[in-house]
Amino acid sequence: MHLAYLPDASEGLMSLPEDESKHCVRVLRMREGDPMLISNGKGLLFDAVVQEAHPKQTVVFLQQGRKGYDHWPFELHIAIAPTKQNERLEWFLEKATEIGIDHIHLFHGFHSERRKVNVQRLQKRLVAAMKQSLKSRLPVLHDMKPLHELLSCEWNAQKLMAWIDESVTDTLMDVYEPGTHVLVLIGPEGDFSEAEVKLAVENGFHPISLGPARLRTETAALIACHSIQLLNQQAEK
Amino acid sequence: MHLAYLPDASEGLMSLPEDESKHCVRVLRMREGDPMLISNGKGLLFDAVVQEAHPKQTVVFLQQGRKGYDHWPFELHIAIAPTKQNERLEWFLEKATEIGIDHIHLFHGFHSERRKVNVQRLQKRLVAAMKQSLKSRLPVLHDMKPLHELLSCEWNAQKLMAWIDESVTDTLMDVYEPGTHVLVLIGPEGDFSEAEVKLAVENGFHPISLGPARLRTETAALIACHSIQLLNQQAEK
Repeated sequence: MHLAYLPDASEGLMSLPEDESKHCVRVLRMREGDPMLISNGKGLLFDAVVQEAHPKQTVVFLQQGRKGYDHWPFELHIAIAPTKQNERLEWFLEKATEIGIDHIHLFHGFHSERRKVNVQRLQKRLVAAMKQSLKSRLPVLHDMKPLHELLSCEWNAQKLMAWIDESVTDTLMDVYEPGTHVLVLIGPEGDFSEAEVKLAVENGFHPISLGPARLRTETAALIACHSIQLLNQQAEK
Repeated sequence: MHLAYLPDASEGLMSLPEDESKHCVRVLRMREGDPMLISNGKGLLFDAVVQEAHPKQTVVFLQQGRKGYDHWPFELHIAIAPTKQNERLEWFLEKATEIGIDHIHLFHGFHSERRKVNVQRLQKRLVAAMKQSLKSRLPVLHDMKPLHELLSCEWNAQKLMAWIDESVTDTLMDVYEPGTHVLVLIGPEGDFSEAEVKLAVENGFHPISLGPARLRTETAALIACHSIQLLNQQAEK
């Protein structure tokens, strides 16, 4: 089933934007009467039927919206320092969207090699992953900030910081309380500096390990994301 | 610390192969007296020191081998149907190596769109990931087989099959017994056929769900791999 993203979706007749119309008609060869799904990216899915298949403006009829399957009783925030290779960050965005994430925060720190990202491109990757995995919610991508700004924000969440250091013996699964909102910080390729860790701890962040494996930045971020989801699924049983 | 892969590594003086020698001398600019690590890919790491830095044949002195950090008391096998896009399978190989996996089996089934892979290329990706994550063990990549051959093998392991179907209510974490060897089958983009599932069940495979999220093939394989590692880490506590 094809899913289209329409941020202002509501019950009744609606037009798809040109790129989506073109994709539906030219690539998927959809015709009048064909069923599809519409996501508003904010938690609702709409069953829809094509009324007029036109490559510039396809008209669809949307039934009443229903809650998507991708809701969970906690907010999952991951803050990540963009990787040197763009592709690795984009890959994380795709996979985290599939697995389930609420907010992605980008930051640059002392050891960051990248301080600029192409937000539009990242946003496209998120939308593609949302559509592909039939999600009703689009993860929120927050603008790049310096780390100290992120640290001093008010967070209504458990504040965790993945840090590779011999002194860190608590793991994510020791510390995270299922059901609660959580923010996990993932450092750049050169990790956090001592001063950054000190500042984070002063701001109430808890340094944690993600286990014995030595992981790349984007892998660490994904593992954190999946661990939170899995620990919550266990707790719900 | 740079890690080189030398399958026949042993204590004493050894030569690095030409590509590794070139990388050490031309790219990393290593010189006599520089320290490095050598992995034999079979569980041993050797602390080593460069004796002669030459781009064609660098000579290193290896101390006595020691056990790497990447050992666990179970065998983790993932069998995956290669994805349509090579890059997605390669990505899985890289990430699974980082997280920790023992054996990767490739198969083609009824809905497979790919029946051939470039094994050498995949092998290179595994070696690169092993080196990057300082592993002492190289995951074993097994040749592509038809699914029915894989199903009828003798497996000294829990046999699980990720299948997306309403009838499947057991999840991986319900069924997997930490500490035991395990094989998880991950189907192609079009999933397993009914006949394949029937044959698998007849051969003692247990259909499982990987949770509520709709995942791509390579994401499902990675999630299975990480879940097994995490469930074992939990059980060891």
